[in-house]
Amino acid sequence: MGIVVQNIARAEASVIDRLAACGVATVHEAQGRKGLLASYMRPIYRGARLAASAVTISAPPGDNWMLHVAIEQLQAGDILLLAPTSPCEDGYFGDLLATSAQARGCRGLIIDAGVRDVSDLTTMQFPVWSKAISAQGTVKETLGSVNVPVVCAGALVNPGDVIVADDDGVCVVRREEAEDVAAKAEARVAAEEEKRVRMAKGDLGLDLYGMREKLAAKGLKYV
Amino acid sequence: MGIVVQNIARAEASVIDRLAACGVATVHEAQGRKGLLASYMRPIYRGARLAASAVTISAPPGDNWMLHVAIEQLQAGDILLLAPTSPCEDGYFGDLLATSAQARGCRGLIIDAGVRDVSDLTTMQFPVWSKAISAQGTVKETLGSVNVPVVCAGALVNPGDVIVADDDGVCVVRREEAEDVAAKAEARVAAEEEKRVRMAKGDLGLDLYGMREKLAAKGLKYV
Amino acid sequence: MGIVVQNIARAEASVIDRLAACGVATVHEAQGRKGLLASYMRPIYRGARLAASAVTISAPPGDNWMLHVAIEQLQAGDILLLAPTSPCEDGYFGDLLATSAQARGCRGLIIDAGVRDVSDLTTMQFPVWSKAISAQGTVKETLGSVNVPVVCAGALVNPGDVIVADDDGVCVVRREEAEDVAAKAEARVAAEEEKRVRMAKGDLGLDLYGMREKLAAKGLKYV
Amino acid sequence: MGIVVQNIARAEASVIDRLAACGVATVHEAQGRKGLLASYMRPIYRGARLAASAVTISAPPGDNWMLHVAIEQLQAGDILLLAPTSPCEDGYFGDLLATSAQARGCRGLIIDAGVRDVSDLTTMQFPVWSKAISAQGTVKETLGSVNVPVVCAGALVNPGDVIVADDDGVCVVRREEAEDVAAKAEARVAAEEEKRVRMAKGDLGLDLYGMREKLAAKGLKYV
Amino acid sequence: MGIVVQNIARAEASVIDRLAACGVATVHEAQGRKGLLASYMRPIYRGARLAASAVTISAPPGDNWMLHVAIEQLQAGDILLLAPTSPCEDGYFGDLLATSAQARGCRGLIIDAGVRDVSDLTTMQFPVWSKAISAQGTVKETLGSVNVPVVCAGALVNPGDVIVADDDGVCVVRREEAEDVAAKAEARVAAEEEKRVRMAKGDLGLDLYGMREKLAAKGLKYV
Amino acid sequence: MGIVVQNIARAEASVIDRLAACGVATVHEAQGRKGLLASYMRPIYRGARLAASAVTISAPPGDNWMLHVAIEQLQAGDILLLAPTSPCEDGYFGDLLATSAQARGCRGLIIDAGVRDVSDLTTMQFPVWSKAISAQGTVKETLGSVNVPVVCAGALVNPGDVIVADDDGVCVVRREEAEDVAAKAEARVAAEEEKRVRMAKGDLGLDLYGMREKLAAKGLKYV
Repeated sequence: MGIVVQNIARAEASVIDRLAACGVATVHEAQGRKGLLASYMRPIYRGARLAASAVTISAPPGDNWMLHVAIEQLQAGDILLLAPTSPCEDGYFGDLLATSAQARGCRGLIIDAGVRDVSDLTTMQFPVWSKAISAQGTVKETLGSVNVPVVCAGALVNPGDVIVADDDGVCVVRREEAEDVAAKAEARVAAEEEKRVRMAKGDLGLDLYGMREKLAAKGLKYV
Repeated sequence: MGIVVQNIARAEASVIDRLAACGVATVHEAQGRKGLLASYMRPIYRGARLAASAVTISAPPGDNWMLHVAIEQLQAGDILLLAPTSPCEDGYFGDLLATSAQARGCRGLIIDAGVRDVSDLTTMQFPVWSKAISAQGTVKETLGSVNVPVVCAGALVNPGDVIVADDDGVCVVRREEAEDVAAKAEARVAAEEEKRVRMAKGDLGLDLYGMREKLAAKGLKYV
Repeated sequence: MGIVVQNIARAEASVIDRLAACGVATVHEAQGRKGLLASYMRPIYRGARLAASAVTISAPPGDNWMLHVAIEQLQAGDILLLAPTSPCEDGYFGDLLATSAQARGCRGLIIDAGVRDVSDLTTMQFPVWSKAISAQGTVKETLGSVNVPVVCAGALVNPGDVIVADDDGVCVVRREEAEDVAAKAEARVAAEEEKRVRMAKGDLGLDLYGMREKLAAKGLKYV
Repeated sequence: MGIVVQNIARAEASVIDRLAACGVATVHEAQGRKGLLASYMRPIYRGARLAASAVTISAPPGDNWMLHVAIEQLQAGDILLLAPTSPCEDGYFGDLLATSAQARGCRGLIIDAGVRDVSDLTTMQFPVWSKAISAQGTVKETLGSVNVPVVCAGALVNPGDVIVADDDGVCVVRREEAEDVAAKAEARVAAEEEKRVRMAKGDLGLDLYGMREKLAAKGLKYV
Repeated sequence: MGIVVQNIARAEASVIDRLAACGVATVHEAQGRKGLLASYMRPIYRGARLAASAVTISAPPGDNWMLHVAIEQLQAGDILLLAPTSPCEDGYFGDLLATSAQARGCRGLIIDAGVRDVSDLTTMQFPVWSKAISAQGTVKETLGSVNVPVVCAGALVNPGDVIVADDDGVCVVRREEAEDVAAKAEARVAAEEEKRVRMAKGDLGLDLYGMREKLAAKGLKYV
Repeated sequence: MGIVVQNIARAEASVIDRLAACGVATVHEAQGRKGLLASYMRPIYRGARLAASAVTISAPPGDNWMLHVAIEQLQAGDILLLAPTSPCEDGYFGDLLATSAQARGCRGLIIDAGVRDVSDLTTMQFPVWSKAISAQGTVKETLGSVNVPVVCAGALVNPGDVIVADDDGVCVVRREEAEDVAAKAEARVAAEEEKRVRMAKGDLGLDLYGMREKLAAKGLKYV
């Protein structure tokens, strides 16, 4: 505790944008169904879809001091990601901090705790995925750390990893795997498009994926 | 496990539509306050309101194979209803399956588990009531059954039972009781309309329902 | 149980309106971070923001009889606030009761239980903050009390206390402290506005609040 | 609601005893992994293990009137099983009702709600599997039903079905399948005993069950 | 925040002992079914049964500083009762604090948060009712208050109120009502004893309480 | 997925034993309050206290195949630690697998899912810390991995890391930090012992830790 790592590596901006275009469900599949944060992480409003480099924060319960420290570390295209050191639903973050973060080019916040001023944040179009919405205030008494590895909502996030988030939830992609995952995700998008066209015409997944034989072999009985 | 029932009886289309018009809260009252699914079953978007015949699915946790099997059993006016064999929040269903189901006239999905691609499903206006929104993918390895009785979110559902769903949640009506329940529900709607007019004018429920005497008899004291 | 207090003191209307203008998060801070209801109390639709005098209800689980009794006690500018005597998610309140309450000038409902007809309530613009949305009906068999002190979602509420509610949740302000809290909240709003302007320009909280020295003293290390 | 079915069929006593001897986990496997109640149903003390015929109760939230009605319907070797009509954790049952039930030969209680006097119940050795322990009292105002089918903790239970319960939880066996399930469960016990001996000597499941080839075929890699 | 009230009134020791003898369920009934803490408050070991005067603590999440302050305020026969200012499961209290509290005659701890060293506390026979067991440590940075009214697990507790706790949970009795409640609780114990004898002989509650007529009037049907 | 790492480094046996002697709460403090698993991980019986080297398992929901694979990788002094790839409460592990693991010197199981046969496991004195107790069976269809890094109940665990577990919960110590943490934990034990003696005599933490001045500086007021 009490450490701020100042220079972190980030993925290439173009790769990050490609991941954003694919969305969480596809990226999650493309990287072998890993990296998903718990499903209790919900967006405060619908329709946001983004990818960004994680500036990570480890913070004590009910203490948002490190958010101020972390904002100084932001570069344009980053996202703040906060994990409390023990379970907490307090409102660590509101419209003032969002104004400050947005002024530095921050794309949003992922927080395994609470957020407040959600009405203002919606007006500002500053997206947040959080465990709770809570007006409960916090103190500024105890140190945490910035840009250290954290476990957030059940997923390990290293500083500089790529966060992909949309209405389906939040997924983390390792920085060093980002380009590879982007390519795989784009391939899935293309393949799905073809299937969508056929399914829209009435073709069945049973036939498209050739499942009938395998189902019969497993013993499925039609009565 | 491993059974697909192909020919199920359904309620009459006109009866189903009458139930849809009454809505969940009224239908639930009309049939004696039974058949409601647990309140954690929430719509992925607001405003959908429907009734439909249930094509039921019993599926293993984290395995969506049977959804492909079930889609072949759909008729226009049906709804898919999936209950996992043990608690699960994975995203069994997304936009591809919805495209396939919609192509066959399916009206939506009730799932005591997770759903994904909710942004696309909203655009498609394919309504889903689910326990969770989760991008977590599933496998296709283990058989389940289609069109067998299941307990879904605490309610017993037989294949062909009528599902009524709106912003208040989800209710099941036994196929063989559907016509009777529709009549009772419509009577309630009419009676409520009359009361609404009087209440809007300022009449009190205490007087409309003649409660004052009974309250006094129970010992209510005004101080 | 079984008591209705008929004449309760209320805060001044102008003070109540000043609290509404400040919002939950600011009011909660202004009164020393107390009085917040649990974060599971969520609005049935976004965008409502109000303050009102509490008409409190203590009701048995699954029994909404006392809501009828409470509605008679409403004055224009009041809000209904119901706490069940044991945990319950049933739908105590729907569009008929809302019509009746609205006819008497009621501004909304705070209920540590369930509500139904949420689609109609949204159309009516009758705001509700609740623990659950549930179509489950209730009975009218057992007495409760109206306008007695209750603990609602973890907060003590006395009849006539001011309830402030918006998208961030619900906060209670003691009637006798309302004017003082309103003044403090307005001072916070003014102070925050100044900081928002500076933060929007890129100034950091670290500098605005003079935190750097204190952080160093606590041992924060930049690496 | 408001119905008491007086004469229900029960399984043979000897079959019930054979199911008790096998335990919940084995019985659940033997009948194809169905019939398990939710895992939140926990025993109030460890070490009880039984099977018994279900006398079912559907009761309103916070109202234990029907328990008195149900006790009259008990025969020696029965178990009470209560499902509330909406979620409730109140303490429906305590030492007085247990004394009355025990006097009629009742073997215990399964309740998807709360129980109280657990210290006395432990002394009496009256086993209970419940969702909660709560001293919260209940009223006697509203009818429910006795010996009708109910969904209890996610499982459908018909009156006269066999309930098997031990430290692992609670499982229901259809009355008409009880003998067949008992035979299958006993076969499993025998087969497991053999495997236990070999495993205790150090033999691996990989070899006992011949899994190595299938794992390799699926692509498992040792590194 | 930041206040320690040093001289609080307590109930008479003999009254407190009489309440302990009656137990939580009976005391809760005797005072009209009020004052029960939420059912998630569980004892760390079974078998403790006590009543004591509450020394209350309002503490920030993850900060146990005020426990040290509160221990100085203890008199023999008191119990510590801690409510966090926002939800928290951290382990505020362990064997060292218990040693210190026990040295001052403290009878136990009620904490709407976590506790640790439960193995040692069991050996010491220092009873705790808590929301969680957690080894998570806390800091000593932020003030709270001692001997102010708090809401703990959903119940309002004033300093000096009597806490009754046993295996069924925790109940609070207002100090000024303690003697009256003790008398009523003892009357209930006597009345229950008589009923227990009759029920043990096989008499039914239906007859003991004269319920048959009322059930018939409500419409109960035996089939 | 589908990888088994066969040769993992482990901490020295003597270091592991020293950590076991200190217990979870002390070890957690000694390493700077990190590494604690979520508090929902509870022991199936009280009194076990151990430390061991983690053999980690990443398994699909409802599929326990990898447990058989992992058991072959066990050395005496190891502990199995299983994290499902999505939330699951099924009973992955029972007395047969415990017999097999125990035969290979395994000290217990940490599982962020369910366990069954808990009565037998207690008799065998095979300790398990789990999220749930559930008789729900699992399949053997889909590969996972053994001895890869996993996030278990919110904590990152690498294969070969030291797991410390007792009645307070479960904590992970990095293998490479184990010796250092053991030394620090032993120092804490010694320091605490001294304080316990003084506190047992009635000395207050306020004085032992010299807190009075700091409390006064923060503004604590005695009234």
